[in-house]
Amino acid sequence: MHQLNQVIQEIKPLNENAILKTLNHLNQLTKPPGSLGRLEDLAKQISGISHETVPDLSKKAVVVMAADHGVCEEGISAFPQEVTPQMVYNFLNSGAAINVLARQANAEVFCVDIGVKGKLDHPNLIQKKVKPGTDNMAKQAAMSIDEALQAVLVGVEVVEELVEKGYKVVATGEMGIGNTTASAAILTALTSLEIEHAVGRGTGINDEMWKHKQNVVKSALEINQPNPKNALDVLAKVGGLEIAGLVGVILGAAKARIPVVIDGFISSAAALVAYKLCSTSVQFMIPSHLSQEHGHQFMLQEMGLTPMLHLDMRLGEGTGAALCFQLIDASLNIMSEMATFESAGVSGATEEEVE
Amino acid sequence: MHQLNQVIQEIKPLNENAILKTLNHLNQLTKPPGSLGRLEDLAKQISGISHETVPDLSKKAVVVMAADHGVCEEGISAFPQEVTPQMVYNFLNSGAAINVLARQANAEVFCVDIGVKGKLDHPNLIQKKVKPGTDNMAKQAAMSIDEALQAVLVGVEVVEELVEKGYKVVATGEMGIGNTTASAAILTALTSLEIEHAVGRGTGINDEMWKHKQNVVKSALEINQPNPKNALDVLAKVGGLEIAGLVGVILGAAKARIPVVIDGFISSAAALVAYKLCSTSVQFMIPSHLSQEHGHQFMLQEMGLTPMLHLDMRLGEGTGAALCFQLIDASLNIMSEMATFESAGVSGATEEEVE
Repeated sequence: MHQLNQVIQEIKPLNENAILKTLNHLNQLTKPPGSLGRLEDLAKQISGISHETVPDLSKKAVVVMAADHGVCEEGISAFPQEVTPQMVYNFLNSGAAINVLARQANAEVFCVDIGVKGKLDHPNLIQKKVKPGTDNMAKQAAMSIDEALQAVLVGVEVVEELVEKGYKVVATGEMGIGNTTASAAILTALTSLEIEHAVGRGTGINDEMWKHKQNVVKSALEINQPNPKNALDVLAKVGGLEIAGLVGVILGAAKARIPVVIDGFISSAAALVAYKLCSTSVQFMIPSHLSQEHGHQFMLQEMGLTPMLHLDMRLGEGTGAALCFQLIDASLNIMSEMATFESAGVSGATEEEVE
Repeated sequence: MHQLNQVIQEIKPLNENAILKTLNHLNQLTKPPGSLGRLEDLAKQISGISHETVPDLSKKAVVVMAADHGVCEEGISAFPQEVTPQMVYNFLNSGAAINVLARQANAEVFCVDIGVKGKLDHPNLIQKKVKPGTDNMAKQAAMSIDEALQAVLVGVEVVEELVEKGYKVVATGEMGIGNTTASAAILTALTSLEIEHAVGRGTGINDEMWKHKQNVVKSALEINQPNPKNALDVLAKVGGLEIAGLVGVILGAAKARIPVVIDGFISSAAALVAYKLCSTSVQFMIPSHLSQEHGHQFMLQEMGLTPMLHLDMRLGEGTGAALCFQLIDASLNIMSEMATFESAGVSGATEEEVE
């Protein structure tokens, strides 16, 4: 707990001077003030994070945390549990969707085994297993507070290592059959949302399994009684190891003052925990897409975040976040490459009341 | 009219076989079926357009049509009319937002003077002036039917030339101080939408000017009485030369069987006219972003299109469409680079009912 508190204490708000400087530059560019909308917001946020008006964010990382879920024995997923390690190898062999989209964005994928059941072996795998999958939250706590804490600190450490290697922006990704169930439980525990709004179809289940999944989440919450005022307690009792790892990635990024791009439903469950542990951390988050998973919108609303990409995606892995890298690049390119009214000889607005 | 009818008659629906072949391949990739949402839809649409499962769309063009609007003498814009030619030179000198975003997407910007007031001179400008700006639609028709037709055919011709040069996808862009007023008039004339929902703030006007802009649109519709069943009549009476040019770009793309990415409010006014002239043309349109201009959502709804980027942008020029190029690339990269369940040794879903 001591170490986590230290991380949280080092998270400071955005730099207002840098934001103002960026706004001032944006208003000199050949476009109506504010007309590039969220691209302008991104430029301001990134300068507030980095203290620079146009930081070099060319070194980009996607951290994919992988772990298994004991709750799978309740039969809540359309896919068997062995898909978790199979997909980890797929990531490591560059065959998954996240590899394709990261490559397009000039980003590197880093895959972390933080809790996959069974032994994995690959030279590029980051081995940080806290335990071989969570326990079945429908029967007991998914993990102990100590294990959750340890997993969060793995995430902090992974980001520290990336920052040391020169990475300037990080996106969250995950793999873990069963993890929409854990994310729905976190969402229900930390907000006042009803279970039927929090629980979605995951990788694709029918009506009957969907009802069953809701009952499993209900049981998990009844049996474990997570304390809604204590996000770490919620994370441990009904969360997942990869979710805990991503909490650490987010807090670690905020501490290191680099932007962290939040993917979909599971990543946002981690973001919600990070936000509840340290509300300032939200200033470092860049929301990416709106997942087709029904509960996602409520998570984002709870944090005051608005997604930019509406693509009806529900894959995870960091795929939505990787697509968002291009929007970040666009915002920085606008800052560095556009002509000003003066340099281009373009007349400004005739109205003082221009918004 | 004869020539336009010929173009429309050559527009044929998407190829269903190519779409099925693409769907079949998508379902073999290592992800739950359909989980990449709109990226999968794009892959299917593009194959239906091109008759290929993974066409090479690397040669991309943004066509920026520029023209002036006689209605500017009513004082409906925050910017003076001389900004139209000034911005055209800014495009030609690569200083505008569209240049920055097109460069990032590896796309070329082609700037067409289809109706700018005054003489422009630049080696890279495509000179196709139909007339030096429309007449003031608050007092008379913006242009004659013949002029509108001529401007539409300019757009068809520009796309034909691009296709000959090997361009495989085109985005719509525009510049013309006053053109949100014309677009709002088109929207009101072609749908049952009330004027106050169709008229927005454009480049940024205050409440008083906004009320005035609504009255100007009202006058234009009363004086000209455009026939809602005749999109060409609407285009001529309350449209713009750049909007007419983009109608031609869209129909020309559909005829040539290449995808056309639709930008924001003004481009969508052109898309709406194209759709009313030939409903099959919508199958070739890729909607990009949702503009902050209030009426945009209604235009897209009318055509059954759903935007993918929610960036609160309201700049035009093709900026939202250029950002969409990356999503198109992503959909094609997914098709060509992802591993299949078989090649990666990943287990499929255990449930037959998987969606």
